[in-house]
Amino acid sequence: MTCAPGNAIAQSMTEDPTFSPALLPAGFVDLLTPDARTEAEGVATLMGVFASHGYNRVRPPLMEFEETLLAGAGAALAEQSFRVMDPDTRRMMVLRPDITPQIARMAATRLADLPRPLRLSYAGTCVLVMPAKAEESGRQIMQTGIELIGPDSPQADAEVVCVAAEALAQLGVPGVSFDLTMPPFVPALLEEAGIAPTTRPALLRALDRKDAAAVAELGGPLAQTLIALLRAAGPAAQAVAALNSLTLPPKARAILQRLIDAVAAIAEQAPDLRLTIDPVEFRGWKYHTGVCVTVFAVGRAEELGRGGRYLCNDNEPACGLTFRPDVLFRMIPAAKALPRVYVAHGADRATAAALRAKGYATLAALPATAGQQGDAQAEARHLGCSHILSGTTCTELA
Amino acid sequence: MTCAPGNAIAQSMTEDPTFSPALLPAGFVDLLTPDARTEAEGVATLMGVFASHGYNRVRPPLMEFEETLLAGAGAALAEQSFRVMDPDTRRMMVLRPDITPQIARMAATRLADLPRPLRLSYAGTCVLVMPAKAEESGRQIMQTGIELIGPDSPQADAEVVCVAAEALAQLGVPGVSFDLTMPPFVPALLEEAGIAPTTRPALLRALDRKDAAAVAELGGPLAQTLIALLRAAGPAAQAVAALNSLTLPPKARAILQRLIDAVAAIAEQAPDLRLTIDPVEFRGWKYHTGVCVTVFAVGRAEELGRGGRYLCNDNEPACGLTFRPDVLFRMIPAAKALPRVYVAHGADRATAAALRAKGYATLAALPATAGQQGDAQAEARHLGCSHILSGTTCTELA
Repeated sequence: MTCAPGNAIAQSMTEDPTFSPALLPAGFVDLLTPDARTEAEGVATLMGVFASHGYNRVRPPLMEFEETLLAGAGAALAEQSFRVMDPDTRRMMVLRPDITPQIARMAATRLADLPRPLRLSYAGTCVLVMPAKAEESGRQIMQTGIELIGPDSPQADAEVVCVAAEALAQLGVPGVSFDLTMPPFVPALLEEAGIAPTTRPALLRALDRKDAAAVAELGGPLAQTLIALLRAAGPAAQAVAALNSLTLPPKARAILQRLIDAVAAIAEQAPDLRLTIDPVEFRGWKYHTGVCVTVFAVGRAEELGRGGRYLCNDNEPACGLTFRPDVLFRMIPAAKALPRVYVAHGADRATAAALRAKGYATLAALPATAGQQGDAQAEARHLGCSHILSGTTCTELA
Repeated sequence: MTCAPGNAIAQSMTEDPTFSPALLPAGFVDLLTPDARTEAEGVATLMGVFASHGYNRVRPPLMEFEETLLAGAGAALAEQSFRVMDPDTRRMMVLRPDITPQIARMAATRLADLPRPLRLSYAGTCVLVMPAKAEESGRQIMQTGIELIGPDSPQADAEVVCVAAEALAQLGVPGVSFDLTMPPFVPALLEEAGIAPTTRPALLRALDRKDAAAVAELGGPLAQTLIALLRAAGPAAQAVAALNSLTLPPKARAILQRLIDAVAAIAEQAPDLRLTIDPVEFRGWKYHTGVCVTVFAVGRAEELGRGGRYLCNDNEPACGLTFRPDVLFRMIPAAKALPRVYVAHGADRATAAALRAKGYATLAALPATAGQQGDAQAEARHLGCSHILSGTTCTELA
């Protein structure tokens, strides 16, 4: 017996040209079949890989007091957060825009006495007042990720990247690339090289635009170095060679060396991973203090995830990476619908149960009004069933 | 090789006597390992049973405009809902306190053209301004459930109960009981019997308290009938016999007959299911218009789930049932931790990958500072590992 999935329902559920966007606020959507299943099953796959590397699942709440959620690592998130008053305490509560600061809070409080390295994983929903970037349409976003708390080493940075890469491979996401940055590097370099504070904002903007002409004009004694840094961005092996050949003041060199060491540690664990480096990138990071990473699919602009090093609320070192399942799961095949069997009135219940155990969905005949029995075959087709069960016999529909 | 789970971490993560409740608002909690995994895996089990009966998963958003979420079936939920202003449209948005009204909205709009019966399932988080009852401590609650939209028949009522019972059996919840009620019955009976509107509130309160003396005093011509109804509550077979022997006015009799027919349809599909009936129960139902059901575990006061018949936004008949996974999963064994293997520095990566594929969690050695190597055995024990991988050899710790 072969059963083809009932695609009629799945298709009409994902495309509805009559849907009026006025029904839901911008950035909030109804996810239908099969997308809702693709997301749930994809999250389970990611969490399974995280668990297999010793990351224990936690589930912090959707809302917290403003004082706890926006403290420490979370302070940068204040403007993205919806707030409501708790009628009980009259204190303000925040609907979380990000889960990482909650993990940082837990690590510093309830989980402070657990042995380190502390490996935690999570999957949950976040809400943003506005999407972070114009091209990201969602205000309700899923986050699925890991946090590695305790060690501050290139090996720890590398573990997070390599576990994330394994999770994407397990999910079947094609052509993944990890872009590494070191956000503290450029500000530290400008400071150490004595670039005047009044010049820095314009110079940072020029670097952000990758505008070599403006950098040459504003960079003073650093101009050649900064242009060389701009040009060094690209595939990791070449970038590291270019960065090693640069002369840098000692503090900036030490910060950059950590990025180079992390690249080496990743290459040792996962030699085939596609890595790029952008040494001058420093924008868009909220609470990060070390090596940062953005995950892309080759040829696509959307981020699949991002992460990096930060400090927990009590200044304990940590690094992590968060996937955006809603973006990720548009890139993988939709979850397969179960083949559907229509269970005619009076059909054998044990046979129906056996079909379910074999992976079929069985849909019981349900007359609109009691006693009425329609054409079972027509009804089966109407409901997207490929088979019909009558008595103990399951037949494929012609 | 036998690997015992690393219970040390799991235990210390669920019990922390130093936790200050001031850190989180009342009713919002951090779920730790293993509870967060038990919940996630339990939800997957429930959703799997729902899918096997043809219920397609949907995922409505966490927030909607007040006008859509609190319309129709949702109107009864207004006082339980947090609201925030959408800065984009300046309209009020509601953080959902319940998912069923969202499904009712979807059925009446985007999914209006799909064939009926329309079977939908969902799993998601809801937030209440205050918990519905004193004994339920959560304001953030999980809901996992099904909605069966279209048919208005005892067979449809029965399907929802029987699918829910199968899901609980699959999950391994012991001693489940389904308590059936018909909330419209008593109000209709008082109306039809001509009980004065001024007497009704006191009489309803007396019925609600199961106070036979007060019912006798206030019930007028209905007193004997109402007392008989109070006494009829209990196991379904006896209750139905008692109800069948009562003389009732025709409209009230028709409403009650639907409850009796639903009981018969359930008994036909699942003869061993423990069913009770409470014919006078009418409180605590928000938007229900027909047979309602509450799921209990024998000997426990907490509800595991509830559901019943209602009307979608366009008055289409529907019935559904929602589980409370946070209550449910306290009753089943905790998700088993993966056995943990400590991967010593320089151990073979392929062997570690093979162990993961076999169901082990492998924890990489991560010195606090680069280059430092501690005592691998001590570190392994510290992290709750039962085994250590050195080179290609996995050894059980003594």
